Amino acid sequence: MNAITPTSSDPVLWQRVHGSFVRQGLMLHLGARLVSVQSGRVEIEMPYAERVTQQQGVFHGGAIGALADITAGYAALTVADPEFEVTTIEYKINFLAAHQGGRLLASGEVVRAGRRVIVATAHVAHIDEQGQRKDCAIMQATIAPVPKTY
Amino acid sequence: MNAITPTSSDPVLWQRVHGSFVRQGLMLHLGARLVSVQSGRVEIEMPYAERVTQQQGVFHGGAIGALADITAGYAALTVADPEFEVTTIEYKINFLAAHQGGRLLASGEVVRAGRRVIVATAHVAHIDEQGQRKDCAIMQATIAPVPKTY
Amino acid sequence: MNAITPTSSDPVLWQRVHGSFVRQGLMLHLGARLVSVQSGRVEIEMPYAERVTQQQGVFHGGAIGALADITAGYAALTVADPEFEVTTIEYKINFLAAHQGGRLLASGEVVRAGRRVIVATAHVAHIDEQGQRKDCAIMQATIAPVPKTY
Amino acid sequence: MNAITPTSSDPVLWQRVHGSFVRQGLMLHLGARLVSVQSGRVEIEMPYAERVTQQQGVFHGGAIGALADITAGYAALTVADPEFEVTTIEYKINFLAAHQGGRLLASGEVVRAGRRVIVATAHVAHIDEQGQRKDCAIMQATIAPVPKTY
Repeated sequence: MNAITPTSSDPVLWQRVHGSFVRQGLMLHLGARLVSVQSGRVEIEMPYAERVTQQQGVFHGGAIGALADITAGYAALTVADPEFEVTTIEYKINFLAAHQGGRLLASGEVVRAGRRVIVATAHVAHIDEQGQRKDCAIMQATIAPVPKTY
Repeated sequence: MNAITPTSSDPVLWQRVHGSFVRQGLMLHLGARLVSVQSGRVEIEMPYAERVTQQQGVFHGGAIGALADITAGYAALTVADPEFEVTTIEYKINFLAAHQGGRLLASGEVVRAGRRVIVATAHVAHIDEQGQRKDCAIMQATIAPVPKTY
Repeated sequence: MNAITPTSSDPVLWQRVHGSFVRQGLMLHLGARLVSVQSGRVEIEMPYAERVTQQQGVFHGGAIGALADITAGYAALTVADPEFEVTTIEYKINFLAAHQGGRLLASGEVVRAGRRVIVATAHVAHIDEQGQRKDCAIMQATIAPVPKTY
Repeated sequence: MNAITPTSSDPVLWQRVHGSFVRQGLMLHLGARLVSVQSGRVEIEMPYAERVTQQQGVFHGGAIGALADITAGYAALTVADPEFEVTTIEYKINFLAAHQGGRLLASGEVVRAGRRVIVATAHVAHIDEQGQRKDCAIMQATIAPVPKTY
């Protein structure tokens, strides 16, 4: 169903993000998968399943929000100092259309990397079983570097 | 662990929200539970579990956001016309502190009920095993009534 | 038209906020006036005038946003260390109703005062010529303490 | 100081936006100027002046927010039905850097044009006296078409 191969031009960066990603109980539970990692840019996808739906059978806004949040957060992580993790201070998301089936592909991008605050955006697209892509949601997020505790 | 009994002063209102709530794959999957329903106010809780954590072991921002989102949404549903469901247009959430263990209790409240747009806020508190309550997150959400399709 | 007397239980706190407020070209230009200052809470008002209107004659969302922003910011300033100013990292505002005439009264309140980030909310009410109060807008803002440069 | 000539590929569209713009007391007062109008895209600029500053002498967040708000709103107006005006339901803005002198150039773009709700983003750049461009702020806004009353 999904021919995307995880990629990064930088194995160290990939390992940094992947090492954090697999520790996320929520993301594993929702079936999310890391797709690509570059400096300042990360992609994560989430296939459609009953566990990510709301009451009318489409992708749940909460699942879309969680996916966009971590995608923006991992984009931020790629530009944070190596001994830091990141934490989301706040985010805002607009839902553009409801979708059923297929999968979501979220792309996070760093807009400004400050020492204390990183601003990132995320765009979530829906890709149906035929590969057609449509807008799903957009996010602006504010992220802080924090000391890594694991 | 949790002595709260589901309550509403209005059984019809309770049934309306509960009937939608149990159709939410995501919420059931995350272990969320409807706590109280009043006109313009809804409470939903979510116990701590591995499935709602992030990489450092605390509640995942995505799970907190999903919980706050549906709590604001169901508060909106209590004031929407009976033949309508609601959909979230957008929301913004600020995370106030990280928490581990215990449970989250989200309270949603309608601030303005327009014909086309409903504005609601949600407050998420963390309640630890000893019953101590601390702030976790605050949300502002914009919600639209939409025709019910089930 | 307006019998509110500027007040604070703490003259030092009042002076701190007022000393910054009068340096704000925009606020003076828009006719805003500091109403009250307490630790963690500030009120600022803005009378109706042509200069704060939009194309249909009601208060301009941009003027409401600016008023709410500085009210949240000054609430944050009251809890920041004395040698710091504050700067807004981001805010989100929902407009609840359009109003003409009278004045706006914005109330800012600190929700969480962290060392690096302060979260505050602002509520903007409209008060008409007869003194009747109605909701106008609500805001969530994220504010950072920054070194004072004047 | 500013060689940009107001432009639009479509004089009717230009007139529609311009006719609304000149009715905005706030925008005229702050010295804002309509730069370009296309279907789904609008640019507005605001030169530096004492009236748009905050207490440390840089562009006031409230002025930046007002500028971004109307730029997103006018982008939305270009795609709304001809007999409608638009009103901002809510917006969220992240401030990326503080700037002094020169001018701000805001670019608004429609992301989704629904019948009841239009989602738009705005990007605000600072352009200094030498023409160098830097990021200033980004916004996501939710806008509603409303009947025109003038």
